[in-house]
Amino acid sequence: MYKRRGKVFVVSGPSGVGKGTLVEEVLKKRDIHLSISCTSRAPRHNEREGVDYFFINKEDFLEKIDKNAFAEWAEVYGNYYGTPKAELEKHLSKGQDVILEIEMLGAAQIKELGEDAVLIFVLPPNLKTLKNRLISRKTEDSSAIEARLSCTMDELKHLSNYDYYLVNKNIDLTVDELLSIIDSQAHRVSKDFIEYLEESERQFSL
Amino acid sequence: MYKRRGKVFVVSGPSGVGKGTLVEEVLKKRDIHLSISCTSRAPRHNEREGVDYFFINKEDFLEKIDKNAFAEWAEVYGNYYGTPKAELEKHLSKGQDVILEIEMLGAAQIKELGEDAVLIFVLPPNLKTLKNRLISRKTEDSSAIEARLSCTMDELKHLSNYDYYLVNKNIDLTVDELLSIIDSQAHRVSKDFIEYLEESERQFSL
Repeated sequence: MYKRRGKVFVVSGPSGVGKGTLVEEVLKKRDIHLSISCTSRAPRHNEREGVDYFFINKEDFLEKIDKNAFAEWAEVYGNYYGTPKAELEKHLSKGQDVILEIEMLGAAQIKELGEDAVLIFVLPPNLKTLKNRLISRKTEDSSAIEARLSCTMDELKHLSNYDYYLVNKNIDLTVDELLSIIDSQAHRVSKDFIEYLEESERQFSL
Repeated sequence: MYKRRGKVFVVSGPSGVGKGTLVEEVLKKRDIHLSISCTSRAPRHNEREGVDYFFINKEDFLEKIDKNAFAEWAEVYGNYYGTPKAELEKHLSKGQDVILEIEMLGAAQIKELGEDAVLIFVLPPNLKTLKNRLISRKTEDSSAIEARLSCTMDELKHLSNYDYYLVNKNIDLTVDELLSIIDSQAHRVSKDFIEYLEESERQFSL
């Protein structure tokens, strides 16, 4: 029987667009592993080791960077965040798909890895909707929100790195759309698949 | 609002694999136009003009080839088959997706057109299943069936031209898989989409 390697699904998008909820719903509906990042930042009071992040100190993080142990990493406001290669490999080699919720720079690194990666960007229906969502969260003042919106417009210029986009107007609809993207990937013609067919001659079993 | 051009879905696969049933089910469930081919072959008694084919004579067919009027065409056992460009354009320009059930050589021509085309190949779970289906049809003798199977194995060598494959074990499941491929295409990041976002600045509406 043909057994494929796992695929990496990367979900990115501006703060407030609803990425977290989307990923949560997908995890309920499909057998996909959610990759947990490492970070050098201190845990917040409600964050749990190995659930929200793997918390390591800055020295250890830098050492891992030197050893090329991250599939992707980034420094954000002096804190480091990254996805350990070993963690990814553990699942992909078993044929299990992995989902990563990371930002644009990390996504580009994943694409460069040569891993079978599918990059998905979640957009708001328009910037006004995103602004309203950020305002209703009440976690940032208006200048921080304006900075975020301007950052989002900058990000859109790099959207060509992504394979798919979703417009999160209605969460149930967007979940279904994300599932169609995920499900369709199991049927992509790959080099591995063609090799399997060629080697199996008339005996292939699918 | 962003309005995209229609996409072309090409469905190919060996005789007896169930392509026709799959396409029929998709047409019931999605707003896709089934492209009707032209042929120079004489209509069979149950075939209707404009439903099964557009029947034209050989001279007219050859003239259309000269005029580059076909998006794809092929000669099979002395008969010509082809998809008129005008017929495709009529739907694609309105943003409507079109599905084509054509063989491998035609599929390759569609890909070369530069049209936004998605190529899907339908496989049997194994060659034995395909052989049994062809036998139970009782339309061909065993040497013709052996020739078909050998032709199928040759075709598989060119599977890399295709974007997706489906394994038709269970028709209901395979229809769902085909729908996930079709649905996911509406979310592909394209040059057109990026241009729309860039031009719309903060005013984008999706």
